[in-house]
Amino acid sequence: MTMRSIEIYDTTLRDGTQGEGVSLSLQDKLNIAQRLAEMGIDFIEGGYPLSNEKDTAFFEQVRKLDMGSSRVCAFGMTRRRSMKAEDDPGMKALVAAQTPAVTMVGKTWDYHATEVLGVSLDENLDMIGESVAFLKRHADVLYDAEHFFDGWKANPKYAAQTLQAAVDAGAGWVVLCDTNGGSLPEEIAEIVGQVKQQLADTNVTIGIHCHNDSELAVANTLAAVDAGANQVQGTINGIGERCGNVDLISAMANLALKKKGYQVLGGQPLTHLTELSRYVYETANLQWRSGQPFVGQSAFAHKGGMHVHAVNKSASTYEHIDPATVGNERRILVSELSGRSNIIALTTKHDLQDDKELMNKILAEVVRLENQGYQFESAGASFDLLVKRLAGTFTSHFQTIKYRIVAGDRDAQNKVAFAEAIVKLQVGDVLWFDAAEGHGPVNALDAALRKALQDTYPELSEMRLLDYKVRVVDSGAGTAAHIRVNIESGDKHDTWGTIGVSENIIEASWKALVDAFEYKLHKSKTSTPQQPAEF
Amino acid sequence: MTMRSIEIYDTTLRDGTQGEGVSLSLQDKLNIAQRLAEMGIDFIEGGYPLSNEKDTAFFEQVRKLDMGSSRVCAFGMTRRRSMKAEDDPGMKALVAAQTPAVTMVGKTWDYHATEVLGVSLDENLDMIGESVAFLKRHADVLYDAEHFFDGWKANPKYAAQTLQAAVDAGAGWVVLCDTNGGSLPEEIAEIVGQVKQQLADTNVTIGIHCHNDSELAVANTLAAVDAGANQVQGTINGIGERCGNVDLISAMANLALKKKGYQVLGGQPLTHLTELSRYVYETANLQWRSGQPFVGQSAFAHKGGMHVHAVNKSASTYEHIDPATVGNERRILVSELSGRSNIIALTTKHDLQDDKELMNKILAEVVRLENQGYQFESAGASFDLLVKRLAGTFTSHFQTIKYRIVAGDRDAQNKVAFAEAIVKLQVGDVLWFDAAEGHGPVNALDAALRKALQDTYPELSEMRLLDYKVRVVDSGAGTAAHIRVNIESGDKHDTWGTIGVSENIIEASWKALVDAFEYKLHKSKTSTPQQPAEF
Repeated sequence: MTMRSIEIYDTTLRDGTQGEGVSLSLQDKLNIAQRLAEMGIDFIEGGYPLSNEKDTAFFEQVRKLDMGSSRVCAFGMTRRRSMKAEDDPGMKALVAAQTPAVTMVGKTWDYHATEVLGVSLDENLDMIGESVAFLKRHADVLYDAEHFFDGWKANPKYAAQTLQAAVDAGAGWVVLCDTNGGSLPEEIAEIVGQVKQQLADTNVTIGIHCHNDSELAVANTLAAVDAGANQVQGTINGIGERCGNVDLISAMANLALKKKGYQVLGGQPLTHLTELSRYVYETANLQWRSGQPFVGQSAFAHKGGMHVHAVNKSASTYEHIDPATVGNERRILVSELSGRSNIIALTTKHDLQDDKELMNKILAEVVRLENQGYQFESAGASFDLLVKRLAGTFTSHFQTIKYRIVAGDRDAQNKVAFAEAIVKLQVGDVLWFDAAEGHGPVNALDAALRKALQDTYPELSEMRLLDYKVRVVDSGAGTAAHIRVNIESGDKHDTWGTIGVSENIIEASWKALVDAFEYKLHKSKTSTPQQPAEF
Repeated sequence: MTMRSIEIYDTTLRDGTQGEGVSLSLQDKLNIAQRLAEMGIDFIEGGYPLSNEKDTAFFEQVRKLDMGSSRVCAFGMTRRRSMKAEDDPGMKALVAAQTPAVTMVGKTWDYHATEVLGVSLDENLDMIGESVAFLKRHADVLYDAEHFFDGWKANPKYAAQTLQAAVDAGAGWVVLCDTNGGSLPEEIAEIVGQVKQQLADTNVTIGIHCHNDSELAVANTLAAVDAGANQVQGTINGIGERCGNVDLISAMANLALKKKGYQVLGGQPLTHLTELSRYVYETANLQWRSGQPFVGQSAFAHKGGMHVHAVNKSASTYEHIDPATVGNERRILVSELSGRSNIIALTTKHDLQDDKELMNKILAEVVRLENQGYQFESAGASFDLLVKRLAGTFTSHFQTIKYRIVAGDRDAQNKVAFAEAIVKLQVGDVLWFDAAEGHGPVNALDAALRKALQDTYPELSEMRLLDYKVRVVDSGAGTAAHIRVNIESGDKHDTWGTIGVSENIIEASWKALVDAFEYKLHKSKTSTPQQPAEF
């Protein structure tokens, strides 16, 4: 079968940053651009050079990087009304960005031209044509047709004219944007098909740019490709305004691995997708979405016991793709329900297969702890430590002699709260007694632990606490209930989860903290970077 | 146009709880079931009665609730091999649940029958038919065809036979499950169309049950409905194993508001969807997804730089639907206008309608607090106190001079943790200084507060803390993040919710505790039992 190559156009650095809570520094943007280029992404939209100095600086600096075969694009709008293209500050900024390609957005929807821009329908066509023609002297031009599908539904003839204006002026791509994200797959298929007919005699590439407001961005993108689009625009992890852009991760994985007849990224394997997804989350300081299709931590996680037994027997019949094809991993979640087959799957790396007695001890301990409120599914590091303890291969790096926190208000009238912690630890033959303040008691305990351990274990400086979760396990008991604390920690290689349960939230937090530190210290002893449990 | 009514079948309480980190108490499940019934959801799957005692108890207790027109279902599997249906413990548990309908899952895929169950293809058909026939004597039977689409692709003839076995034995519904979540919309459409032909001469309803592993669950569900399915199974917010089930929120909104020719929930408006989504997140102690289609906080958020004026002028050209149709709100991020209509609605009982200046003060205060992480949806009592404070009708029953907690381990070796609190309060002209121990710091603070206040306010003896919830608001910051504490309190008349937010979990808890006590004391002064906020 001949494979159609679908171009991948990333706008994480521009449309992605419109997302609520998304903010990237100049260096973040350069780092992500570099990573996208290493993946072989065809087009990388770097920003909107007129809008801010950071984006202007980005285009200056990205020129110094080796971007391989990726083409960096600057983004801008059509010239303003009643102004020549060559005099327009936005046009000038696009040219000054010196990118091999520029992406220019224009109005498709008659209402937006007349009511938002306040220009006649003819002047809007002139603005599109003249802007494209001007930019074409400096770079390849991609034309983004804003509100394309809504505009087409309102006035198809005029929408077609806007595309024609761009094509006649030399645009090499017309990108059909579902700006409000409200279109349905059947509408996308129908309209892209009509545009394909309109442009049948040209060499213009049709692109598709979807938003996820109806939770249909991926389906809409695939429908457009089936109908003739050869370029897909989106963002890594689907970050973006409102409900986000289409997630390029899902779009690429579906095109290359699930649909028939398409290839992306020159047919390379997609084994770096998971790493790319997490890199972008980490750089943007956003939480991973554990249920994210293809690359989420839970995407190939198996919970129910019967299920797990069968997964071990024939994974492919319980997984829609092999997780390794996207660089992800199968995880077997430990839970009371899952029984022995889960535990066996989880402990393979500990080499305990033949020790039935030990396996039974582990299972009994998991059940005992789960009855207290433990849940190991998000606490793979605590589980690994538990196995080591029961197997006799655990050596503690420090012993707690004492810990204590004091918290309250320094000044109740002015609401100045405080938290202080002291810890007394034995590390080898040395006793360490240290104190620290913190934003709250757990933060103070973390700080005091680091102070007491940093001389002996300098590698702790690269460990960070990423997330802290609290859950009341048997909430009927009010403030006397059991409290479960989960801590997620990370360094530059891995992330790992630990857990503590107690009626006392301070004690629960302390247990989870101690496990987090012990796991890091155990991990650093192994010569090769170790994956934090095979969960 | 004649509208086709699409049945909505919710499995949040069963398949949803397979999601990683999802855990619901018995009371949580009853509360959610009640809320689903109030929404008019057609079928509510409550659990798997054989699997655990909690689900057994659920079915006993849900019978005492008014579920309106909603039908509660118990879930189970076909009888075991080599056993009569009436002797099978799973079958017996299904009957014992005494639900008006039962949902029974069986194997479609020949491989799974022979390799996972270890039965012949004929015996699998017998297991399906005999189990349905047995259950049919007690309740309506829905047959969930596991791995239906993968099974069909592997062996369409056998897959059709499994459905026929269920139909011949009396199943009223056959629900086609994309168990691994890997099917594409065009495959779903094609196969559902063929099943529709197969069952053309019967009255059997075809259902669709999708998972989101390819980020296509919503599109697959819509494709199935277009091809003839009349029941949609899914979960609220799409919680569920791996990447989750189809989100019923998105499915219902697309069917009723975007597609043509369908209605759900008897054609009622969907204005409670946002509230329902958030209720389920809160009850399950899960984070809201701000970018969630239709109901997320960012779903209709317009960022600062954009033409706010234009949005206000003609919102429909910037939004794919009116947010009010799903109970959501437009948010203009720069001017923080969110919530005004809520606040007006919420303050009606305080009789403030004419005091515009006070309304503006309340609004400003709510916005300020929401930026700190407050959310008043589950804290009506704190909101009422806030209004009283700003209206000048609040009189405090006690003033905090000082509070302090100490927590740690009395004996680290034997893991004996402790928590102690001291409080110093001014009550009228008297200073009270008291100390108490507790299971944890919050329990100790609660006990100390009671000691200091009990002589002056004996009515506090009838007040209990019912629930304590902790949520990290900006979890990216690890243990230095803002922490939101919600406390639910009750006496024999009412229950009421209060809230506190701080970087310090002790301070956040203290604020919520103080509000809980103040609300009780304000309440006892009024002659008639007062409902705690109209949230």
